[in-house]
Amino acid sequence: MRRQEFQCQDLAEFDWIAQHGRVGHLGLIDSSGFPRIVPLNFVAFNRHIYFHGALDGEKFEVFRSQPQVTFSIAIPYSTIPSYWIAKDYACPATTYFKSLHIRGQGAIAEDMAEKATALQAFMEKYQPEGGYRPISCNEPMYEKPLQKVAVFRIDSLQIDIKAKFGQNLSPKVRLELIAKLEARNQATDQQTADEIRRTLIAS
Amino acid sequence: MRRQEFQCQDLAEFDWIAQHGRVGHLGLIDSSGFPRIVPLNFVAFNRHIYFHGALDGEKFEVFRSQPQVTFSIAIPYSTIPSYWIAKDYACPATTYFKSLHIRGQGAIAEDMAEKATALQAFMEKYQPEGGYRPISCNEPMYEKPLQKVAVFRIDSLQIDIKAKFGQNLSPKVRLELIAKLEARNQATDQQTADEIRRTLIAS
Repeated sequence: MRRQEFQCQDLAEFDWIAQHGRVGHLGLIDSSGFPRIVPLNFVAFNRHIYFHGALDGEKFEVFRSQPQVTFSIAIPYSTIPSYWIAKDYACPATTYFKSLHIRGQGAIAEDMAEKATALQAFMEKYQPEGGYRPISCNEPMYEKPLQKVAVFRIDSLQIDIKAKFGQNLSPKVRLELIAKLEARNQATDQQTADEIRRTLIAS
Repeated sequence: MRRQEFQCQDLAEFDWIAQHGRVGHLGLIDSSGFPRIVPLNFVAFNRHIYFHGALDGEKFEVFRSQPQVTFSIAIPYSTIPSYWIAKDYACPATTYFKSLHIRGQGAIAEDMAEKATALQAFMEKYQPEGGYRPISCNEPMYEKPLQKVAVFRIDSLQIDIKAKFGQNLSPKVRLELIAKLEARNQATDQQTADEIRRTLIAS
């Protein structure tokens, strides 16, 4: 990233972003040499990314060769209108965000216990209220489904975390933004104000 | 896409998804041959994608060579818990979505009028309430900023639209899902119910 001030060194953010990001984007190079993006539900543990799919089709074919892939999770926060920062001048308009970018190697999980563990973690993320028999390779109900589903894994080689919350602005302007966000108080405004506050404490 | 039932032939959805998607994901191949994803705010017109950045850095270097790139916009709708479809069995849990995937050629807009038009459209999308002097190459305030910003364009070569709203389920199950979504009535549940209804009318 060109803008070093938005780079985040705190690896604890990895787990937070991976838990709170509902949709991740897998990036790969397809058989024709074109970049390709697949939006996916996913789960992370031990800093690996897991998702599932079919035992045929493009993802499977590409992952079979243990390719270089990327995985990105972007969490948008509040939009900052230009007029909060400058009169008349449109350019300061921006959107604050956190994002996580992984470069890694794709693999297909073959071990039934690993597949079951990944899919159970997936259910706990997306259906935390339960309401199903836990996925395990000892549960007869899941024996065939576990064989028939492909579980894909990305082994992280490089992790990049970004967070844009006004680090390029003076503390005075950041305090004004916090006040404006808290007064507007829409959707993510309070969380955005809290994150700007964290940049003031950190700096 | 392997699952043809989720393929959408209605190009009107292009404009809807591009307008309602706040974050798009640019996919490219970086100079080391690795796939790379950049989450971005963007605007579409005439089925081209525009976004802006710096006149140096990786995006600029890659786009200079008019590369093959991809751009994806995913709009997640409601999560469907497994127990709405099956007792005990976790596998039917899913998330409904709309997504747009473009394969295209990257280019850098050089013409000041094109740059101004793209950035003004961008402002109208993200700051519809106004509060700034409109961006135009005849407005002296924007003369230097228009020279200093890079405006990137993706010329669409192939467009793929996907929509998953229960097309793989019987009309009876889809009607049950509509009722459950409307009773739960959280976040995107009503919009999801409306989209399932559209699949019933279309089929």
